[in-house]
Amino acid sequence: MSELAKRISSTNPNKSNIVISVDAMGGDNGPSAVISGIEMAAKSNPDVKFIINGDKSKLEKLVGNRKNLNKICEIRHSPDVISMNDKPSHAMRHGKNSSMWGTIDAVKDKDAAAAVSCGNTGALMAISMIRLRKIPGVYRPAIAILWPSANALGFNFMLDVGADIRADAPDLLKYALMGASYARNGFGLKHPRVGLLNVGTEEHKGRSELKEAHDLISESNEDGEYEYVGFVEGNDIPSDRVDVIVTDGFTGNIALKTGEGTASMIGTAMRESFKATWFSRLGALFAIVPLKRFSRRIDPRRKNGGVFLGLNGTVVKSHGAADSTGIAAAINLAVQLAEMRFNEKLAARVASASIDGESN
Amino acid sequence: MSELAKRISSTNPNKSNIVISVDAMGGDNGPSAVISGIEMAAKSNPDVKFIINGDKSKLEKLVGNRKNLNKICEIRHSPDVISMNDKPSHAMRHGKNSSMWGTIDAVKDKDAAAAVSCGNTGALMAISMIRLRKIPGVYRPAIAILWPSANALGFNFMLDVGADIRADAPDLLKYALMGASYARNGFGLKHPRVGLLNVGTEEHKGRSELKEAHDLISESNEDGEYEYVGFVEGNDIPSDRVDVIVTDGFTGNIALKTGEGTASMIGTAMRESFKATWFSRLGALFAIVPLKRFSRRIDPRRKNGGVFLGLNGTVVKSHGAADSTGIAAAINLAVQLAEMRFNEKLAARVASASIDGESN
Repeated sequence: MSELAKRISSTNPNKSNIVISVDAMGGDNGPSAVISGIEMAAKSNPDVKFIINGDKSKLEKLVGNRKNLNKICEIRHSPDVISMNDKPSHAMRHGKNSSMWGTIDAVKDKDAAAAVSCGNTGALMAISMIRLRKIPGVYRPAIAILWPSANALGFNFMLDVGADIRADAPDLLKYALMGASYARNGFGLKHPRVGLLNVGTEEHKGRSELKEAHDLISESNEDGEYEYVGFVEGNDIPSDRVDVIVTDGFTGNIALKTGEGTASMIGTAMRESFKATWFSRLGALFAIVPLKRFSRRIDPRRKNGGVFLGLNGTVVKSHGAADSTGIAAAINLAVQLAEMRFNEKLAARVASASIDGESN
Repeated sequence: MSELAKRISSTNPNKSNIVISVDAMGGDNGPSAVISGIEMAAKSNPDVKFIINGDKSKLEKLVGNRKNLNKICEIRHSPDVISMNDKPSHAMRHGKNSSMWGTIDAVKDKDAAAAVSCGNTGALMAISMIRLRKIPGVYRPAIAILWPSANALGFNFMLDVGADIRADAPDLLKYALMGASYARNGFGLKHPRVGLLNVGTEEHKGRSELKEAHDLISESNEDGEYEYVGFVEGNDIPSDRVDVIVTDGFTGNIALKTGEGTASMIGTAMRESFKATWFSRLGALFAIVPLKRFSRRIDPRRKNGGVFLGLNGTVVKSHGAADSTGIAAAINLAVQLAEMRFNEKLAARVASASIDGESN
């Protein structure tokens, strides 16, 4: 146990004393964006402490410049960095001295309640799986994200968006249980509505594993902890018809990136329209308040963070291109999940479903 | 051959005398929206004639009200209508007297150069397959759509978006050939860039059939009629990195509907932002010109129409919810493809690739 963790657990063992382990070396914007993100997150979470993993000399300089961070951060040195192009298998074999490995090990060793990294997703999942291990009853872990939506919460939950390129019917059932638990125990959403992503809402449509999963999820819903709404389509993802969208990691990844690409194209088209003429520039000036309100509402940085579900520990994957605002959002999410003790509740939920008779 | 077709072919056999067969009974907005769409399309295509399939008494009233349509339309009576909920298998067995069947048969009988319907997609594909038959070398036909993009054309091409829920590597190769031919022979795009949709651009990523298709498409590119750019991701769909996006019908359908849902959610959020306060309403007033320019650019009605590729005949599927503007766009697309004699060129392209050695 680290010095920092010992100090916290001995002096103030209440739940607000949370430690978050952060990989400072992953991400496109380098350690300075990560440290700025930590600084932003620390302001809104004054009791939270941080273990920062990476190149000690670089990090000491960055943290040293910020007096408010000095007292709440422990820097742990890792000489290596996993690059965005490293294969997961390479990271597993050669990543022991990397900042990513160190970040996950702080959770494994119970020094930290949750881990945050902006690094290579495949490598982060591979290292998380071998270090934290899967919870009983889960064969394929999943990555769950928040999707801006018309719901009261302002977003829906979708999983898997890329942990694994395939999912069989029992995996999809586990995704439904884990996704519902994530919405309920991570965000306090009572009776989340769960839908299974398909090419139509009629029961005869789609691939065979989806029809099988449809039956499994319907049957498993007896305890009434979620409401299964059946098949949903791509256009339902940002709608208020459903809260949790279940799909395999291939389809989920394509949908997520298609949504991002569409939003980005629309943003560009809108900016170009406002720049087109002298008069439209004037229009933009008058429209600046509603346009800012609109941008804030769909800003992907405000809801940044894919959470790995199905492991013995909470891991939040921030977008690789995240700036300090995005990294702060990912850290805030990790803090929230640690506070809710969400991962223990999820493991209990999946275990009870497995005992109830359905096998994987 | 119909009276109308005989008259055209005997008096004026040049290519501008095109006949389009339209299903007037499909679609959410009923025959009056279809007839209004025909009227709009007729204005921009003064030499085109129409065969309108559906309930004769209803259609005679609708057409009779429009003097300009009387001379260029032939109404063909069909007592039945395929509903949006009918299964494809039901439509195939019991659809002989439907407006959809009649619409396709007009193409089969060479009375019309192309067919347009806003009806049930699965039923339309099933009827098109049994009546028109697949072209040699194609095992799974595909539906190709136009996707608003940052390209010079203003849109990309994507297929399959839902003809079939699966595609093996040889099918994906055919989709690449057909999609490139669609872009080249339907829209005059030289050397279209073809990409294969995957969860990453690295060669080791994705499902096994994608890796196999990657090799097949690379090898088949020797004639240089298209440029294969390799794997592309969801965010590349509306980008200018690629012109033709190849995927299976399950993934393509999810991506298409996710894009539609995202665009619609953003539109709603923007309208709400502009309505939020008295001042932002004033902003909207000043921003009306750029906002309209922006809406026009991403308006899905202006590029409406999924084209069935791989059949002996051109079939355009309009969005079921299309209004008259959308239906006119689908008819305009059918006219354009008929003028370009695109379907014959596509069949020749696929046949030559099959002879070149690769089998299906």
